Amino acid sequence: MTERILHHFPLDPASRQVRLALGEKRLPFTEQTVRYWEQPDAFLDLNASGVTPVMVEDGLVLCESRTILDHLEETCPEPPLLGRDPQERAEARRLVLWFDRKFDLEVAGFLLHEKMEKRLLGLGAPDLAALRQGRESLRHHLAYLEALLSARDWLAGRRLSLADFAAAAYLSVIDYLGDVPWDGYPTVKTWYMKLKSRPAFRPILADRWPGLAPAAHYDDLDF
Amino acid sequence: MTERILHHFPLDPASRQVRLALGEKRLPFTEQTVRYWEQPDAFLDLNASGVTPVMVEDGLVLCESRTILDHLEETCPEPPLLGRDPQERAEARRLVLWFDRKFDLEVAGFLLHEKMEKRLLGLGAPDLAALRQGRESLRHHLAYLEALLSARDWLAGRRLSLADFAAAAYLSVIDYLGDVPWDGYPTVKTWYMKLKSRPAFRPILADRWPGLAPAAHYDDLDF
Repeated sequence: MTERILHHFPLDPASRQVRLALGEKRLPFTEQTVRYWEQPDAFLDLNASGVTPVMVEDGLVLCESRTILDHLEETCPEPPLLGRDPQERAEARRLVLWFDRKFDLEVAGFLLHEKMEKRLLGLGAPDLAALRQGRESLRHHLAYLEALLSARDWLAGRRLSLADFAAAAYLSVIDYLGDVPWDGYPTVKTWYMKLKSRPAFRPILADRWPGLAPAAHYDDLDF
Repeated sequence: MTERILHHFPLDPASRQVRLALGEKRLPFTEQTVRYWEQPDAFLDLNASGVTPVMVEDGLVLCESRTILDHLEETCPEPPLLGRDPQERAEARRLVLWFDRKFDLEVAGFLLHEKMEKRLLGLGAPDLAALRQGRESLRHHLAYLEALLSARDWLAGRRLSLADFAAAAYLSVIDYLGDVPWDGYPTVKTWYMKLKSRPAFRPILADRWPGLAPAAHYDDLDF
């Protein structure tokens, strides 16, 4: 049987994308928590860039979420999480990049840095102007998701895909911190409820980190 | 015959990765230059994120370099540019992410922003401290490449891959601006000479942009 060890941080959106995909494909794995902000030598030996997650599969070292997720699609294709034809795949990939680059820069770079990383790194209180900018940007992204989901069952089309996991991974960490204004975006909220109730999501909802308590509704399936 | 239109900017490293892969696979395409910093409506209609490149292939819209490159590997697999087994592919993907994220942030974010984007956007003179930081960081990355290439034929191993194109796409734009200190890194220089002499590289070496003249040695194969 294939042995998989996932080196990850529970509140890292990239790590969550991999955990959701592993869960959806029902692939068992062992977890190793990485305090990435401390850049431990044992982790840098696995991935010189220091970025989580890393999955070691029977000795094969897979660095970072896109490498792991592409590898899983190629080696464990069922259920497919990247769409079945070129058009579905192009749309899923476009949205994955949207989150990994644009959302990461414009929203996570502010909200997660100010509210989570500064706490982990002992860098003091959040900067209020940066929080405001992250929240403002988040509303633009939620409006875009609301428009997409109003015409589709899932984010990239008719089927659940890695695009949904990319979006949910980011939003779930921001929701842990209590910063997603769900009520203004009913279609996004319904989509997130559907995702939250999937078995693959359960471990995500059980995540807790000392000193960082989740919002009261975080693990509520009917929030 | 498949019709491909590549919407790109000649000095954009992400666009260059796609042009190199298309050239290596000998796939003909039409070019459309995008002045991405002006965010033209016609381009935003193709890709809402505003990021170059976008390839339209017989009407199918493929947004951004990773989407296009993954699509090309799946639909035009010869020659393969992502390695032939899971280990080669994992290493090529790790290095592609290294450049798309880490190098982009630590080097291109300074050097290309200060010397190219500020010129394109009319934002004034480069900030000297930012240039210094970008050049310092570039030397660390070149030392890492020197170490990798001292033990390998190509960046990800025994075969040319998208990892080489990712590295060469970034370095070639920085070299256009005259900022790569080749002489300190002889193995990287030899590797870059090998790449420069491939037919796929010719259009890259012919790139010119008004108001931004290339370094004197830019298109010299024996620099």
